[in-house]
Amino acid sequence: MAVVVNLQNERKQRPSIAALTALAGDDLKQVNEVILQRMQSPVALIPQLAGHIIAAGGKRLRPLLTLASARMCGYEGRRHVALAACVEFIHTATLLHDDVVDESDLRRGLATANAVWGNKASVLVGDFLFSRAFQLMVEDGSLSVLAILSNASAVIAEGEVLQLMTANDTETTEHAYLEVIKAKTATLFAAACRVGAVVASRPKVEEEALDSYGLNLGIAFQIVDDVLDYAAHQATLGKSVGDDFRDGKITLPVVLSFLRGDETEREFWRRTLERLEQGDGDLEHAVVLMEKHGSLRDSIERAKHYGAVARDALGVFPDSPEKRALLELVDFAISRSH
Amino acid sequence: MAVVVNLQNERKQRPSIAALTALAGDDLKQVNEVILQRMQSPVALIPQLAGHIIAAGGKRLRPLLTLASARMCGYEGRRHVALAACVEFIHTATLLHDDVVDESDLRRGLATANAVWGNKASVLVGDFLFSRAFQLMVEDGSLSVLAILSNASAVIAEGEVLQLMTANDTETTEHAYLEVIKAKTATLFAAACRVGAVVASRPKVEEEALDSYGLNLGIAFQIVDDVLDYAAHQATLGKSVGDDFRDGKITLPVVLSFLRGDETEREFWRRTLERLEQGDGDLEHAVVLMEKHGSLRDSIERAKHYGAVARDALGVFPDSPEKRALLELVDFAISRSH
Repeated sequence: MAVVVNLQNERKQRPSIAALTALAGDDLKQVNEVILQRMQSPVALIPQLAGHIIAAGGKRLRPLLTLASARMCGYEGRRHVALAACVEFIHTATLLHDDVVDESDLRRGLATANAVWGNKASVLVGDFLFSRAFQLMVEDGSLSVLAILSNASAVIAEGEVLQLMTANDTETTEHAYLEVIKAKTATLFAAACRVGAVVASRPKVEEEALDSYGLNLGIAFQIVDDVLDYAAHQATLGKSVGDDFRDGKITLPVVLSFLRGDETEREFWRRTLERLEQGDGDLEHAVVLMEKHGSLRDSIERAKHYGAVARDALGVFPDSPEKRALLELVDFAISRSH
Repeated sequence: MAVVVNLQNERKQRPSIAALTALAGDDLKQVNEVILQRMQSPVALIPQLAGHIIAAGGKRLRPLLTLASARMCGYEGRRHVALAACVEFIHTATLLHDDVVDESDLRRGLATANAVWGNKASVLVGDFLFSRAFQLMVEDGSLSVLAILSNASAVIAEGEVLQLMTANDTETTEHAYLEVIKAKTATLFAAACRVGAVVASRPKVEEEALDSYGLNLGIAFQIVDDVLDYAAHQATLGKSVGDDFRDGKITLPVVLSFLRGDETEREFWRRTLERLEQGDGDLEHAVVLMEKHGSLRDSIERAKHYGAVARDALGVFPDSPEKRALLELVDFAISRSH
């Protein structure tokens, strides 16, 4: 109990997403309304399944990025609301297909849609949400926004295929790992931010600054996520710890541990992650090896580097509450890890 | 051998797709070039898998519809080429996801992509092709085209989910069956045709005429396809005959046979298509029941009805080689069945 109290006291000083959520609160409520309204369909399974994953919530990080970016750029209209919803639809469609591909049972502490309704429904409802996202963009009517998000979608799909091909390969380089997380995670962060500058009709330099902020924030965010898969408690993270290990995913902590390990250790990684021959105590041993080589700590160091780049990218913008919230978000992304 | 010769002699008089292919031949070559070029990716699995299903060919019916519709509308530019490719990408993405959902092993007489590369790759490459289609549309720059094809995509996905929900239900009505094939097949036919009128900047009445032509042609086409699944030889159709029966798909011949059958027959359909308890001779018995009740013949009659509507829809256009080819296509769609 003492630990819980300490955490709560500490929370006030720790970087959090609270400032961002507070600033964008009203807009975010409207985003949620658009999401709820536009995931409807006479085909009952669609709102049921979509509602399950969308209501399960998460932090609505990507729509928040669009909302805050638009406001930071001085935008005073309402277009950013539908576009933020559209970003969340693309994200949700990706999650649905991702869970099918990863054969996941649990996401954010809840049963995945594919675990409840089966893979087929998840594939098809993902397709529906993806199409719906494009309908929302067409209604908005900006070809620039359509270009940004259709490009992002193609890159995301490419990244997913790349990950599939390099899966379970312990010789994956740090570079290859980065290419995958850039495509799978960071590209949509970048696009979500960039859309904010576009609706505000800001010059290219600000579009690109927001793109860079989002891309680097996304990389930092994903690296920390991958660290948490070895370091967090299930209750905190809301996903099954050890999932990546069980799936044989080659994330940065593994890449570093493999490179820094001796032949016996490398054989351990090959057995557990390539051949997926895992037994009792293997996950614990993996964490021991990661601690021995400082792989979790150094992964966080890498994340901090990308966080620093993200922060500097915002240098072109004058001070504002939104800018401060976006800067704090970088700290939050990284500080989740400890 | 005699049979082969007869078929070849007969072919000249029979309605075919040849006039359409000949008319649009040069344009279609360019469509194939765009397809080949734009399915490329540094991620090698994408062109491999996409090439497998796209090169496997089929008749390129949907792009041909866009090409011929545009020309019939007097269009003389080049935009229809990329948009026809984009229609084929959407179609291909749908096929890839469809084969995953149906767990099919064979399409057009070849192993399906999911049978060769697995479900995961098929889902993700489908996503890639779908995104690529939207990139092509954005490059074209017409919000009207984007609206038509994003709406079509959402309707297709809805139809797929609807089919999943009504699968293996022998009490499916003819109306419900029609709703599914309208969504799954006919909507993209309609959109492919409509885009032709849009690039040619024709008035709404011509857009809608082409939409109606495509929709009704698509319905006729799918009904005949569903008949062929009980009536054709594998060599002719290029797909496994009896697939629908084995999957327990409720198509029009089944709907009619169930409604017209006695209780013993209905129990046969429930056992084989709902409970999927199938044994030797069941497929043959299904065909016997269909012949007894004239279900295949009457399904073709229904197809002819939609074919007639499609033909009349073109009444607003003056005579032209393209119009004649599109009219012949309706006859071809129906005459495939006998």
